Amino acid sequence: MSRIDGRKPDQLRPIDIQRGWTKHAEGSVLVSYGDTRVLCNASVTEGVPRWRKGSGEGWVTAEYAMLPRATNTRGDREAVRGRIGGRTHEISRLIGRSLRAVIDYKALGENTIVLDCDVLQADGGTRTAAITGAYVALADAVSHLRERKLVKNGAKVLKDSVSAVSVGIIDGTPMLDLAYEEDVRAETDMNVVCTGDGRFVEVQGTAEGAPFDRAELDALLELAVAGCAELSGRQALALAADLATRK
Amino acid sequence: MSRIDGRKPDQLRPIDIQRGWTKHAEGSVLVSYGDTRVLCNASVTEGVPRWRKGSGEGWVTAEYAMLPRATNTRGDREAVRGRIGGRTHEISRLIGRSLRAVIDYKALGENTIVLDCDVLQADGGTRTAAITGAYVALADAVSHLRERKLVKNGAKVLKDSVSAVSVGIIDGTPMLDLAYEEDVRAETDMNVVCTGDGRFVEVQGTAEGAPFDRAELDALLELAVAGCAELSGRQALALAADLATRK
Amino acid sequence: MSRIDGRKPDQLRPIDIQRGWTKHAEGSVLVSYGDTRVLCNASVTEGVPRWRKGSGEGWVTAEYAMLPRATNTRGDREAVRGRIGGRTHEISRLIGRSLRAVIDYKALGENTIVLDCDVLQADGGTRTAAITGAYVALADAVSHLRERKLVKNGAKVLKDSVSAVSVGIIDGTPMLDLAYEEDVRAETDMNVVCTGDGRFVEVQGTAEGAPFDRAELDALLELAVAGCAELSGRQALALAADLATRK
Amino acid sequence: MSRIDGRKPDQLRPIDIQRGWTKHAEGSVLVSYGDTRVLCNASVTEGVPRWRKGSGEGWVTAEYAMLPRATNTRGDREAVRGRIGGRTHEISRLIGRSLRAVIDYKALGENTIVLDCDVLQADGGTRTAAITGAYVALADAVSHLRERKLVKNGAKVLKDSVSAVSVGIIDGTPMLDLAYEEDVRAETDMNVVCTGDGRFVEVQGTAEGAPFDRAELDALLELAVAGCAELSGRQALALAADLATRK
Amino acid sequence: MSRIDGRKPDQLRPIDIQRGWTKHAEGSVLVSYGDTRVLCNASVTEGVPRWRKGSGEGWVTAEYAMLPRATNTRGDREAVRGRIGGRTHEISRLIGRSLRAVIDYKALGENTIVLDCDVLQADGGTRTAAITGAYVALADAVSHLRERKLVKNGAKVLKDSVSAVSVGIIDGTPMLDLAYEEDVRAETDMNVVCTGDGRFVEVQGTAEGAPFDRAELDALLELAVAGCAELSGRQALALAADLATRK
Amino acid sequence: MSRIDGRKPDQLRPIDIQRGWTKHAEGSVLVSYGDTRVLCNASVTEGVPRWRKGSGEGWVTAEYAMLPRATNTRGDREAVRGRIGGRTHEISRLIGRSLRAVIDYKALGENTIVLDCDVLQADGGTRTAAITGAYVALADAVSHLRERKLVKNGAKVLKDSVSAVSVGIIDGTPMLDLAYEEDVRAETDMNVVCTGDGRFVEVQGTAEGAPFDRAELDALLELAVAGCAELSGRQALALAADLATRK
Repeated sequence: MSRIDGRKPDQLRPIDIQRGWTKHAEGSVLVSYGDTRVLCNASVTEGVPRWRKGSGEGWVTAEYAMLPRATNTRGDREAVRGRIGGRTHEISRLIGRSLRAVIDYKALGENTIVLDCDVLQADGGTRTAAITGAYVALADAVSHLRERKLVKNGAKVLKDSVSAVSVGIIDGTPMLDLAYEEDVRAETDMNVVCTGDGRFVEVQGTAEGAPFDRAELDALLELAVAGCAELSGRQALALAADLATRK
Repeated sequence: MSRIDGRKPDQLRPIDIQRGWTKHAEGSVLVSYGDTRVLCNASVTEGVPRWRKGSGEGWVTAEYAMLPRATNTRGDREAVRGRIGGRTHEISRLIGRSLRAVIDYKALGENTIVLDCDVLQADGGTRTAAITGAYVALADAVSHLRERKLVKNGAKVLKDSVSAVSVGIIDGTPMLDLAYEEDVRAETDMNVVCTGDGRFVEVQGTAEGAPFDRAELDALLELAVAGCAELSGRQALALAADLATRK
Repeated sequence: MSRIDGRKPDQLRPIDIQRGWTKHAEGSVLVSYGDTRVLCNASVTEGVPRWRKGSGEGWVTAEYAMLPRATNTRGDREAVRGRIGGRTHEISRLIGRSLRAVIDYKALGENTIVLDCDVLQADGGTRTAAITGAYVALADAVSHLRERKLVKNGAKVLKDSVSAVSVGIIDGTPMLDLAYEEDVRAETDMNVVCTGDGRFVEVQGTAEGAPFDRAELDALLELAVAGCAELSGRQALALAADLATRK
Repeated sequence: MSRIDGRKPDQLRPIDIQRGWTKHAEGSVLVSYGDTRVLCNASVTEGVPRWRKGSGEGWVTAEYAMLPRATNTRGDREAVRGRIGGRTHEISRLIGRSLRAVIDYKALGENTIVLDCDVLQADGGTRTAAITGAYVALADAVSHLRERKLVKNGAKVLKDSVSAVSVGIIDGTPMLDLAYEEDVRAETDMNVVCTGDGRFVEVQGTAEGAPFDRAELDALLELAVAGCAELSGRQALALAADLATRK
Repeated sequence: MSRIDGRKPDQLRPIDIQRGWTKHAEGSVLVSYGDTRVLCNASVTEGVPRWRKGSGEGWVTAEYAMLPRATNTRGDREAVRGRIGGRTHEISRLIGRSLRAVIDYKALGENTIVLDCDVLQADGGTRTAAITGAYVALADAVSHLRERKLVKNGAKVLKDSVSAVSVGIIDGTPMLDLAYEEDVRAETDMNVVCTGDGRFVEVQGTAEGAPFDRAELDALLELAVAGCAELSGRQALALAADLATRK
Repeated sequence: MSRIDGRKPDQLRPIDIQRGWTKHAEGSVLVSYGDTRVLCNASVTEGVPRWRKGSGEGWVTAEYAMLPRATNTRGDREAVRGRIGGRTHEISRLIGRSLRAVIDYKALGENTIVLDCDVLQADGGTRTAAITGAYVALADAVSHLRERKLVKNGAKVLKDSVSAVSVGIIDGTPMLDLAYEEDVRAETDMNVVCTGDGRFVEVQGTAEGAPFDRAELDALLELAVAGCAELSGRQALALAADLATRK
């Protein structure tokens, strides 16, 4: 059975990870999962929030947002409405938790890294692309800290890599990395965040139509784990390249 | 291995479901999971939000909140801060999705039911208690609609029941229905929402410490499914009783 | 002339004051005036707001709110609207002023007590019930401070008790402690806050229909003073009992 | 016993009521109680708020505010803070209720009058000056409606006049119309709103220091009634003059 | 060609500058450009905002607002809407920049002056009247600082005076100081802020209808420079008078 | 005298205009002025805001924002702060006015076009780049309306093109198109918006240091007019190319 864009059920969309995409951020990654494009900027500041001062430990947090016309129909700006919506909050929290799962706070020392994930173009899977891209920006920010001697020499700040992918069941078939049109049709939708060693950081499954049973859940988890393994490889390749584009 | 309160790892806290707890709401349930107490009020209004008008279908939504001193330390009121926090938004959305999973919108007709879940006292698992209690309040609200002939005779508005429970791994042992002190110590924390027939509506697992592997995930899912089955029985018992307390 | 619920014009509704109603708060009282039920939680914190630091004096403040479905028709949450309404502000300020009238700030020392009065079920007189219940919670919070040696031994923090009741004129007859249906029909509505020794802390009378004359005002004040005296007795009885229910 | 400014205890400050103070408003009054100056503008719009449409009845409402430097120390603008404070809300509501007490909604017909009371300079008693001035602006707005034939010929829209004054006990002596320095020192503070025929619309007494007894309350009420009678005369005089100053 | 009010194209409206208009502010000016009346209050505080502490330099800022009924149709209060509109922000920033252009921060020392410009009655040119009036209030506030020895003796805090006027092209004719009705009809509208020595601080020209060419721009600039010179003379006259009216 | 980046005083930075940059928007342009990059998306909706309904005329509006890390130091998100800052408001209004200056509302018919200008990377001149890019996106959106037959055949919706550039005086030398470092050092800063035929839509000059005289103003205007002419040529070239990149 073939998909809208001709992919096989267990196939990712074309993945692209561009580092050094903007010049000011300590880590700046434009990640694409097909037509979904998210700009992930990592900002480093020395020091930590008040509640963490004196602990010797660092902090990592994330904010997610969409440009108004990232989607097919223009959405109102949250700044204009004066409120951040529930979905935005939820995704920001998810990205932050996912990245913190691979951070060694002690090794980071009292430094803060903020990840801004702004969706420039949306076609499904924006939160998973954001996590995958944000990890790479985070890694560049950690290198920046190392170069500036703000973390101890040899300190292993990142315990592992982290990536994410969506899976879902469409017309009874489990599928990997749903595009927007697929997402709309999925009976069950799951976002899975894995570390580079294949363990789980987050598993968020939601029955959009009928509830799902254990067999379906198992099939989705397997697809997702394989997808994350592939994404983890892409992250490693991207990070292995010279950061030549940074101005 | 025994727990702080002497429970076995696979044992729920004392569960209590009181219907008719306040007099104005069409469904009003005080649910307790041990010391966690959530007041779940269902409010019925004829008609649906603008975007759903003319569809012949109803709508169900939920709002979750905590009284300032439900917790050990007083929290600021979100109304005073002028913003709803990310956690509140996220839980409100989870409760809404969970209830909508068992609603037949067509059978409900153009009626709206809002579930207000206010935590009077918190001791871990407030979102899962809220879902379990809200379902019972929802069932009473549907009965109310039926009595007032606002839904068609014989229409099966509720496709199944829905309940929820938290599970987590503490010192390597998977445990059911975590109290607050346990929740704080858990390495992995999962909230599972099941229908009465044992299928999944939501699975939300988060690694708080180390990432978790597939075997741990499987153990947690099993515990949760068993816990939900027991909660589902409690819901049925509560609903089988006369609603004598309603004034 | 008899009232909707068979009471005599100068008769209070059934009054109930339960202490130790929730486990976290230093004072926790569920007060009922008939079907009106308000949960009054007192939270103690050491220290005072910035503007009072170094004065050697304490501070007491209050916040009032209603659960959305405390009333016959569901109201929007103020946290969702992002603003506290005028009525809520006004009542919060009234409760705070009333309690501060009986506090000896010097004796309290640099400690702060916040009273949260959340209406679980409304049937008229919620602000007066809140004051009466909040006083009892405040007294328990003061005992807590005393036990923890946070106020000086023998210091008389509470100069007197304080209670409140509404009065109104319906069809020309002055009546005590109006239920919601009576309140709606009252031509004149007055809330009176008295100390245990029968003096006034607040007198707030409003002509809802025709303006009222001095004779009517005098009749209402007499009713209210008698009502407060009775409520003051109930407070003393409640506080005389062991706080056995606190967990 | 003489007062700071040499007044007798039962003497008002110099009262001034200027009509036609700005050119756009249908009623525009600058009222002074000594150094307290409030600009009261009445704005007429045909039609009523949605919830009142089709009732054949009108609506009157009020908003109160202070310029940032009306007071001795500059206050933050509420528009900048993004919230209206509790005190502002409370006073706006009081002014609105006071004016509505003398309005015959049927005679007003489906018209709305909004009273904006902006304190240009504050020296105590701003809310009472606002009520007294707003009544005069309201009367001019009603004349305007009459001239434009928007109310029926001969309809008596205003059932009576309304004015207000503060009273308080200072060093044991009841005093009329407190200036700011007196207000700060008052043990008991009361705002009284009366109709032209000497009946009460609002009585709001607050013990700032010790609670007050019935004898004190009686003395204050007498002072206030006499003060309102005098203010009522000033209003009549102001309204009897030609509105020559309106440009 | 004559104007609505009979003025010549290069003629200002009647200008009036009253100092000492309210009693609390350190500088208080009611400025009128015809029927446009703006109350400009200067508030002095010792110290500067956090970001400027220790610099030895002062700070000047401004806030602009309109009373709801300053205009022909009542506008909503920004405090009630909970947001300051774009136009308000823009004008506040313009006034602040204009005044800061003539301030010697070093000479001012670590003192802050806030200018509140509240439009009591609007008839076009409110922002330009505000700048002209605010300068005079600022000068009085500086004198106040000098009297209180808060700036060094002989320090020249004000490097020059500053005033502003609007100009526009109506039916092809450049005109000075537009009243509201003219402003509405203008094809091009320009606000010009000049120092006493005739140089520019701000030039803000906007094509309301057709774009304008260089010749039109030149004509407008000439008119504006002459208008500002006249206004600068009025400011000097006002400041030369005794501040007798301050109470 | 040469500039930081080697440019001559009257030389623009490298200008790049990419059309079809995102796939959902009816016009989508990434414009670069050197390192300043702004994504300008035009969104078309049929119909107009309520206040314009039935007029037969269309509407064009704009919103400007910066990604948090577009700048050297991360800025807070306005959505998180819950308010749009004064600078953002001011620039959004400027862009909207500039585009409306070249729109024939009648020819546009009752359609609305919203221009979202989001700064991805900032290096001075973001508002001028936004105007230049937004015009091109607007032109594409008008073509889209024409293709969908939503504007009349042959209707000339765009009366002219519009572009913008900043100019300033640095160390006494007038310079074109300031980069951020230059902008910070400029004594006078001016933003000029011109139509394709070389007339002015907006002229906004501000003295950052000393006030400027007429000769300086004239020199700046000449530079700006020449710069806009060059930008206008770039816009024409960009629009002459096939929109091949749109997916």
